[in-house]
Amino acid sequence: MKAIILSIGDELISGSTVNTNATIIANCFLQAGINVIKIITIGDNEYDIIHELDKSSTLADYVVISGGLGPTHDDITKNVAAKYFNSNLKLNNDAFERIKKRFKHLGREMDSSNNSQAILPHNAEIIPNDNGTAQGMIFKKNQTKYFFIPGVPYEMKIMMQKNILPVLIKESNRKITQIVIHTFEIGESNLFSLLKDWINKNNDLTIAFLPHYTGVDIKITAKSDQNDFSQALQELKEIARHYIFGYDDDTMENIIGNLLQSKKMTLSVAESCTGGRISNLFTNIPGSSNYFMYGVTTYSNESKKCILKVKQTTLDSFGAVSEQTAGEMAEGVRLITGCDIGISTTGIAGPTGGTDEKPVGTLCVGISIFGEVKTYKFCFNINRDANKIIFSQFALNKLRMELINR
Amino acid sequence: MKAIILSIGDELISGSTVNTNATIIANCFLQAGINVIKIITIGDNEYDIIHELDKSSTLADYVVISGGLGPTHDDITKNVAAKYFNSNLKLNNDAFERIKKRFKHLGREMDSSNNSQAILPHNAEIIPNDNGTAQGMIFKKNQTKYFFIPGVPYEMKIMMQKNILPVLIKESNRKITQIVIHTFEIGESNLFSLLKDWINKNNDLTIAFLPHYTGVDIKITAKSDQNDFSQALQELKEIARHYIFGYDDDTMENIIGNLLQSKKMTLSVAESCTGGRISNLFTNIPGSSNYFMYGVTTYSNESKKCILKVKQTTLDSFGAVSEQTAGEMAEGVRLITGCDIGISTTGIAGPTGGTDEKPVGTLCVGISIFGEVKTYKFCFNINRDANKIIFSQFALNKLRMELINR
Repeated sequence: MKAIILSIGDELISGSTVNTNATIIANCFLQAGINVIKIITIGDNEYDIIHELDKSSTLADYVVISGGLGPTHDDITKNVAAKYFNSNLKLNNDAFERIKKRFKHLGREMDSSNNSQAILPHNAEIIPNDNGTAQGMIFKKNQTKYFFIPGVPYEMKIMMQKNILPVLIKESNRKITQIVIHTFEIGESNLFSLLKDWINKNNDLTIAFLPHYTGVDIKITAKSDQNDFSQALQELKEIARHYIFGYDDDTMENIIGNLLQSKKMTLSVAESCTGGRISNLFTNIPGSSNYFMYGVTTYSNESKKCILKVKQTTLDSFGAVSEQTAGEMAEGVRLITGCDIGISTTGIAGPTGGTDEKPVGTLCVGISIFGEVKTYKFCFNINRDANKIIFSQFALNKLRMELINR
Repeated sequence: MKAIILSIGDELISGSTVNTNATIIANCFLQAGINVIKIITIGDNEYDIIHELDKSSTLADYVVISGGLGPTHDDITKNVAAKYFNSNLKLNNDAFERIKKRFKHLGREMDSSNNSQAILPHNAEIIPNDNGTAQGMIFKKNQTKYFFIPGVPYEMKIMMQKNILPVLIKESNRKITQIVIHTFEIGESNLFSLLKDWINKNNDLTIAFLPHYTGVDIKITAKSDQNDFSQALQELKEIARHYIFGYDDDTMENIIGNLLQSKKMTLSVAESCTGGRISNLFTNIPGSSNYFMYGVTTYSNESKKCILKVKQTTLDSFGAVSEQTAGEMAEGVRLITGCDIGISTTGIAGPTGGTDEKPVGTLCVGISIFGEVKTYKFCFNINRDANKIIFSQFALNKLRMELINR
């Protein structure tokens, strides 16, 4: 079975908005074992929408169309769909009640532009939206099923997962067997060279390399339902064991969170060059307050001394960006409330601030576990934003390895 | 003039990777005044690539193709392009030297998979890549120019901006006149209602509403070069003045950073529910160390008391999520090193932790300027990640207004 994703919105083709929706929709198709053959992104333009709806019917079993269902004048998808599927638009009472209820719940005034959101094509199956005013719609033409969903990411995601994914899973009888393996501290081409023989041996698998700032992912997909690749996976794990840190939905911070919970240990973070990014990663995890005590972003020497008790002599002798300072920061943040682990970063994220001795991209990391301090140094420069991501991941990976080795 | 963007990569259609590249490429076309009519995303599949290359030549003056130029076996774009444009692949000495130099600079071993990156189509104009091994290529067919660029975001972006954008701007003679206006604390439909008369009056402008968690953007584009819309813009600014916080590349944190620098004031941040996000936003700005002193993420009551000197009696009487606690946190963080401003957040990001009195989505903000403390309360719930974004934006907007009113 094949699927096409049609993303509609001027903002998507004019460089304003990244099309994150298409990735979420594609992921739902993946979960149902349905191949997405193409993602098409076009503007809010009647001719283009009708052209793509029409062409898709010869290519795909499913088409998911997102965007252009909002209440403003540039949202034309509903009217174009009504035209293409020969519908009359009329007031849908259920939808009207839902929208009224939603506005009441939010304590907001419902105005005429919202009323119009309940005017819907008579021959569409309506997908209720409890999280916004744009209702979803399902049409059928020949063998192709068309799902129209809102473009607002949060509403789109719930509708895809709650209303559409179950339909897709039921109608498709195939499941793709797939795993994503996360590696760190090895580049794409070196990882490829390391795995070359293994790839040649396993030509019944689809293998892709996906580089990110947080590491290179290896994605393995079985080419058929019958293909059990547990043996091949075991071999891969052995070959790349020094670099693999997780699988599928794992993130570095999640893995550390789980390790801390299982070991009943608590963590505090002192950040200079990563500027709060590590704290933000941990606090994105629901329930992280069980192990994440607090984070401190100490940019200035003053705050390093005042909050973290870094010694003036250390700053004078080695500088703020040094393994010595990193070590004192880690132990200092740990001691504030006496938790089990302190981790610190100090470095030069750029674009300015580098010297010959300590160029932009230099990072020092300190880790103190019950007062036993280890430090690390590292240098890699892309740009400020990327460096902060790579620096955080490097520091977290060192912490992960320390926790595993205990 | 018209453009098509062709994004190639299995990871893009299988739900693994968000296509951020297409947005950056589209933005370059926008800057050159060239309309992107379509973004097509397909897998690493020879038939599909050739089909789309061929179809594009009848529809567009420019086609930018990104992805599939890497050194691994799943990267087939270069070979397919050579086939489509009747090229022979041969060693390009300039490219080989560039790649060799790059590996030397990185202190890494160059292996055979990297050598193959210098084998290039004989009839393509090569775009040098100093930031990776995949070289860009330009082909012409009939009236259409094809730019092939790497899929690695950082390499792609530099190549687009440094090598391709100047060509586009030179060859197109048109510039779109456009502005993006950022609003906050008003929803899309209410903003639309507020501006309805103004929109009807200005039907010579293309007006789009773009909702984000950080606020609703209004994007105004002139339909012709001659169209001066400064008068209309002035009227809009008057109508929506309570909600507008910035324009084009402005972000809330950038605006605050500029205000702080011009007023020579310093800031520290104490975060509970936003968990380091506000610190991270400020430290993403190069040079923010001029005004951003430090951030503290105090999740536990213990750390609120210990680091920020929040009183036990305040926590007992009003709870951690209260305007009283927010106020003491703001003043507490300000006093640690005695900087000018302290700002704090305390709230319930969810999914758990809500009560009838303080549901998930509750936020309290404290702002202390030279010891004068103001507090704010707010409630809006989507999900944990979105809430952290909205909470941060709400707190920053209050600080922005305080700074403007001084």
